[in-house]
Amino acid sequence: MYDVEEIRAQFPILSREINGVPLVYLDNGASAQKPQVVIDAITRGYAHEYSNVHRGLHTLSTISTERYEGTRDVVRKFLGAASQEEIILNTGTTEGINMVAHGWAMPRMEPGDEIVLSIMEHHANIVPWHFLRERQGVVIKWVDVDANGDLDPQAVIDAIGPKTKLVAVTHMSNVLGTVVDVKAICDGARAKGVPVLVDGSQAAVHMPVDVQEIGCDFYAITGHKLYGPSGSGAIYARRERMAEMRPFMGGGDMIDQVTRDTVTYNVPPMKFEAGTPSIVSTIGMGVALDWMMGVGMENIAAHERRLRDHAIGRFKGLNWLDIQGTSAGKGAIFSLSIEGGAHAHDISTVLDKKGIAVRAGTHCAMPLMAHLGLGATCRASFGLYNTEAEIDRLVEALELCHELFA
Amino acid sequence: MYDVEEIRAQFPILSREINGVPLVYLDNGASAQKPQVVIDAITRGYAHEYSNVHRGLHTLSTISTERYEGTRDVVRKFLGAASQEEIILNTGTTEGINMVAHGWAMPRMEPGDEIVLSIMEHHANIVPWHFLRERQGVVIKWVDVDANGDLDPQAVIDAIGPKTKLVAVTHMSNVLGTVVDVKAICDGARAKGVPVLVDGSQAAVHMPVDVQEIGCDFYAITGHKLYGPSGSGAIYARRERMAEMRPFMGGGDMIDQVTRDTVTYNVPPMKFEAGTPSIVSTIGMGVALDWMMGVGMENIAAHERRLRDHAIGRFKGLNWLDIQGTSAGKGAIFSLSIEGGAHAHDISTVLDKKGIAVRAGTHCAMPLMAHLGLGATCRASFGLYNTEAEIDRLVEALELCHELFA
Repeated sequence: MYDVEEIRAQFPILSREINGVPLVYLDNGASAQKPQVVIDAITRGYAHEYSNVHRGLHTLSTISTERYEGTRDVVRKFLGAASQEEIILNTGTTEGINMVAHGWAMPRMEPGDEIVLSIMEHHANIVPWHFLRERQGVVIKWVDVDANGDLDPQAVIDAIGPKTKLVAVTHMSNVLGTVVDVKAICDGARAKGVPVLVDGSQAAVHMPVDVQEIGCDFYAITGHKLYGPSGSGAIYARRERMAEMRPFMGGGDMIDQVTRDTVTYNVPPMKFEAGTPSIVSTIGMGVALDWMMGVGMENIAAHERRLRDHAIGRFKGLNWLDIQGTSAGKGAIFSLSIEGGAHAHDISTVLDKKGIAVRAGTHCAMPLMAHLGLGATCRASFGLYNTEAEIDRLVEALELCHELFA
Repeated sequence: MYDVEEIRAQFPILSREINGVPLVYLDNGASAQKPQVVIDAITRGYAHEYSNVHRGLHTLSTISTERYEGTRDVVRKFLGAASQEEIILNTGTTEGINMVAHGWAMPRMEPGDEIVLSIMEHHANIVPWHFLRERQGVVIKWVDVDANGDLDPQAVIDAIGPKTKLVAVTHMSNVLGTVVDVKAICDGARAKGVPVLVDGSQAAVHMPVDVQEIGCDFYAITGHKLYGPSGSGAIYARRERMAEMRPFMGGGDMIDQVTRDTVTYNVPPMKFEAGTPSIVSTIGMGVALDWMMGVGMENIAAHERRLRDHAIGRFKGLNWLDIQGTSAGKGAIFSLSIEGGAHAHDISTVLDKKGIAVRAGTHCAMPLMAHLGLGATCRASFGLYNTEAEIDRLVEALELCHELFA
């Protein structure tokens, strides 16, 4: 039995008020709130156990290193990776994808080589590839979604040509909530000898992930959406791909020997972790992922399906509301517009007066928004602590917006 | 009057014991401890005010954005920059220098072009330039230090030739404590039309810094050494240099428009801050820098000079102790060896038994260690909360090591 009130009680911010009413936090797609156990881990880390990691032999350094390296195995377990040597700890998905772009793709792509993307990608999984287009003549091939917001895996596989060097695709759209069949894409891409990078920023928050079952080459996650600290993250990189990568950032910890004339690098994954890391934030991410696994990823997914279905049911009664994305297995992410031209920013402002936090804008997904013919939308994105009563409060506030702006 | 006990009382970790005795934390060169005000800011950030920044209109996002952007102006003030538009917030010096290497140097350097480094540089200010050597034939020119560990600014200026595109130099050695006359270097380099990057990782912790007075083009700092959270940092980039830089990482926030075929970028400094940042750690860094300025950078420097002088006085009595670096104006950083071959790791282990945290190894400065003819040393590096009594405890423990290993 999923006790959402018991879960909510673990998030101190959820008991605060905004504009005199209890906070309804529906901006989880942008960043999630943190349970007390994560906040406590951070406090303990700084107040009692802090030191730099890896390079010290003293007690505090040993404690910090054990906790920091412990996170690597938590991430391995969370993603179902075979070995923690396939886990690179970093500051989030943006760094993870940029590392693949700079370290794996840049040195092996010639002008005219292609990268296949879906039109649903977040800018974090677009702009690094635009760099390759701008700087070395790489061609981006886009695969569109259908009217429901579904991405046909076969269309992605069919887009792979002889010059395609990489497929980079989201596991869950941050605008539509569409869940992509990344396993089918990976199967098809592997048959054509093309690696696949999966942006798991959203999906890993809402469903169990198993990178071995998916068969991807890279899987990027970001701690702050996973109920962990901002500035934490990780990327799974299949052993063979990691062996092909050159380092992204240079500095301490990622080297073996440095002389005036030469440099040799540490073994992976350390080769890809330069300098003092986000020590305590990374430790906090490990605590967050452990906590999520304790709640149970299947349980979280089931709760959010209930939220999704309740929201869909309530939204159906609002015939002036446009919802983007009607994919059958979609997550609990809703991009909303009110017919009659109320601006998303105005709607967001009214919702905030009612204590409801949503996001207004183009959600770092401008190519998708252009494809959908949209300017800006309001996005209500749900997390494991949201309730059906909160959806009812959202609906009530949207009705007020409709009255005010229609 | 500098009340070190009042300062110590603000650092919760300093009241803990290690191996049954009070902690003596002398590993500040690797990372510093955090005052309660910083820990409280982090806790408050996550427990009461958390949200993603910049892209939200709701109350929590507005609060987070104000606090996050507030840090930019704190950094500006801390570094004496003219405008906060010259401050890029990041995760630390490693990211800062890599950003300059990838974003400024890489696109403008031809094979045979030169970068001038001092032999005292930390790997964070070496390996990114080795990347340019490995990948595009750039030549690294090294300038040695003298027997005291002093770096002659004129020698650096003289090393600048017609093919030199950049000088990259530390402001304070993390091994020797040597303070470099970066202003003289910048004056000479500017006369030759060559930009200067200053690695301020150590110096900014221990003395007032004014980038306008120094006249540098880039000045990198790292929050975790500045009594702030791990995973925070900033780099000052002179407006003209920033205008010359291409973005380092691609993703959200750093763009203006993204289409299938094009990308345009946000204005600096946002152009260089991709994705969700280390929000709360950055806010914590701002609190740390404000707190330091409250203590007073001149007061901190004076206190640490007293520590340095006390340490030098005590070490003089130990004729079996080798100290690296005898520069007259050096900071309170001492790399130690015991004559007779006791290994630095063994010394560090014995010191830890006595509650004293030091670092043993090559301190991410292998070219310097090779220049000095050293394998590994123990490094005792002092911070604003250390005391003369702690130096006496260090000396006592070193005497024990001498007895044990000599």
